[in-house]
Amino acid sequence: MNNVNRYEKGIENITKLSGEQSTFHDVKGILKDISPRLSDLFVSFAFGDVYSGEELTLQQRELLTISTLVTQGGCDLQLKAHTESALKVGCTKEEIIETIIHLSPYIGFPRVLNGMLASHEVIQKFEDDAA
Amino acid sequence: MNNVNRYEKGIENITKLSGEQSTFHDVKGILKDISPRLSDLFVSFAFGDVYSGEELTLQQRELLTISTLVTQGGCDLQLKAHTESALKVGCTKEEIIETIIHLSPYIGFPRVLNGMLASHEVIQKFEDDAA
Amino acid sequence: MNNVNRYEKGIENITKLSGEQSTFHDVKGILKDISPRLSDLFVSFAFGDVYSGEELTLQQRELLTISTLVTQGGCDLQLKAHTESALKVGCTKEEIIETIIHLSPYIGFPRVLNGMLASHEVIQKFEDDAA
Amino acid sequence: MNNVNRYEKGIENITKLSGEQSTFHDVKGILKDISPRLSDLFVSFAFGDVYSGEELTLQQRELLTISTLVTQGGCDLQLKAHTESALKVGCTKEEIIETIIHLSPYIGFPRVLNGMLASHEVIQKFEDDAA
Amino acid sequence: MNNVNRYEKGIENITKLSGEQSTFHDVKGILKDISPRLSDLFVSFAFGDVYSGEELTLQQRELLTISTLVTQGGCDLQLKAHTESALKVGCTKEEIIETIIHLSPYIGFPRVLNGMLASHEVIQKFEDDAA
Amino acid sequence: MNNVNRYEKGIENITKLSGEQSTFHDVKGILKDISPRLSDLFVSFAFGDVYSGEELTLQQRELLTISTLVTQGGCDLQLKAHTESALKVGCTKEEIIETIIHLSPYIGFPRVLNGMLASHEVIQKFEDDAA
Repeated sequence: MNNVNRYEKGIENITKLSGEQSTFHDVKGILKDISPRLSDLFVSFAFGDVYSGEELTLQQRELLTISTLVTQGGCDLQLKAHTESALKVGCTKEEIIETIIHLSPYIGFPRVLNGMLASHEVIQKFEDDAA
Repeated sequence: MNNVNRYEKGIENITKLSGEQSTFHDVKGILKDISPRLSDLFVSFAFGDVYSGEELTLQQRELLTISTLVTQGGCDLQLKAHTESALKVGCTKEEIIETIIHLSPYIGFPRVLNGMLASHEVIQKFEDDAA
Repeated sequence: MNNVNRYEKGIENITKLSGEQSTFHDVKGILKDISPRLSDLFVSFAFGDVYSGEELTLQQRELLTISTLVTQGGCDLQLKAHTESALKVGCTKEEIIETIIHLSPYIGFPRVLNGMLASHEVIQKFEDDAA
Repeated sequence: MNNVNRYEKGIENITKLSGEQSTFHDVKGILKDISPRLSDLFVSFAFGDVYSGEELTLQQRELLTISTLVTQGGCDLQLKAHTESALKVGCTKEEIIETIIHLSPYIGFPRVLNGMLASHEVIQKFEDDAA
Repeated sequence: MNNVNRYEKGIENITKLSGEQSTFHDVKGILKDISPRLSDLFVSFAFGDVYSGEELTLQQRELLTISTLVTQGGCDLQLKAHTESALKVGCTKEEIIETIIHLSPYIGFPRVLNGMLASHEVIQKFEDDAA
Repeated sequence: MNNVNRYEKGIENITKLSGEQSTFHDVKGILKDISPRLSDLFVSFAFGDVYSGEELTLQQRELLTISTLVTQGGCDLQLKAHTESALKVGCTKEEIIETIIHLSPYIGFPRVLNGMLASHEVIQKFEDDAA
């Protein structure tokens, strides 16, 4: 796979995760204005290389991503984008909420609450849109 | 559910995760000598309350736990214990390894490598024991 | 102690820490709408189980909580709620400010400044209300 | 060097880094109202003691500071102030952007993106002012 | 206070915290061989400036330090040294253990367990020496 | 640039940073046994893509890497490998030591001391080998 393919594969995976229009597309666009180099590295490595591995499903990947983002803290933008993707690739609302609750004994309540508030905003919007 | 039940439920879940003898049982024992109060809180809350939720399978919980522990860093003892459990509840070696690889674009390679080295030690031992 | 008692004990401790109306009550309410399970775990474990230990006074607990929250960073909501409680259970303004200053050689100035700005907002409001 | 000299040296270094008027001067002012003791410790230790070392240039120090602040996350105010200084002491826009990109394999994209967005806001403003 | 006084004050406070011979004295010695500049900054700022504030007692400072060190993780050497000091300045074994337990709902069990194991080693040794 | 080239470029950069035999080569080897996929991602992305940017010199990159690794904590293996590289690409011992000292006001002494002890071990060995 050459670099053009890696980037295209990345865009393909982003579209699988989030449709034609999403926070990921927006972030890619903003990054491209600031630094095309960073935009390329981000799309090609994270979404082209890593998300193409077949050992895990996209549902598994999205819940694992929510786990790492809530643990790190301070990544509301990314957490919201991945909550959106989690719902789009078929994770249930209940799985996402329990994923965050599951972290309570590992990281404590402050980051669990922060994560829940950010993530739930997206879940709420998703349900309202579906209604 | 009263507190005795919560503790018993915790021990029951630990046994589901890791058999009759495991690092979790050892940690519980060590803790009991240092502080029975902490040992109780740990078993009852983490394993009694949280692991009893039915929205996620034990396989899902173990991979999510690996994600948060590798992200935090500095938790080799816990990461090894949960790698052991992940294998016991039926996660494949490939899923565990890809879970850690999946974190590369989110936390960077230093903690991914640290996590992989600790986790792989357990995987290796598990395979050797099975052979 | 059964689970109903743990929750009730938690509410009792929250009220000791913060009166009948406070950020803690608000957070509990918001959480209850999102996830009654998380709201219960939070109140019963953090405030029911942990705050009931008699080895430390509530003043000691509040200063220790400020120490861990400022160290973690990114927990302004929680830091403000616990600054409020610290003042209500009798910690002085001077103790709270020095607690944050004390962290400078351990965590550096960026998180100390962030913590001080958030915490001081509450101290200021408390003094204005008292005036 | 006595304490008055350390503070004066700190102010002198702040002025070298950021001119007569800057975020650092503002922060110092805000801190002085909250806690003169913290304001003094901050200026004397960080800028008086540490920045006076001659083993590194101010350009080197500012890029190293950007590295530690982006790594920590949650320090946008400080990151913007040091991006401003980096530009004032002669680091190029390209060096600053590549410094943040350089962190991708070490800390992952979430904190790299957060840092880039905060830092680029200052770079943009600097270029607009220069135009 | 000039710099010689700050350093002397630092040594005086280290001695109050830990007697004539302690891990702090050892660390200071090791640092002096590696970098006299860092050894001076460490003693003068941390122990000379910060520990001289009178708004908190040494007992309060030591428990707050244990809180920040357990929260950060990866600081066993420092945590052991401060557990030693906590005991020497009059904190009880029960207060130290409950300080670490108190952190469970704020940082989760992995770092609480790591901290407890390191800290308890010192408590054990202290009790054995006293016996 | 296709993927074979990216990997080759990565090896070329590793060799520039650390000679024909180094900790990086060892880590790559160990990783290859555990997961060829992770070994490839690591070499191609970190050393092939990122280190090939021409906006920063290798000396600058190595000091920035030391800053992020000391800030993260718990990465002694990586910190030692990059201290080795820093020395090989021409950073002086004084610059490396001051880089770590420079972090004191940003991250506090515990992680600065941990980093200094790990890094200095390599500096010492480097000087002994040169003698």
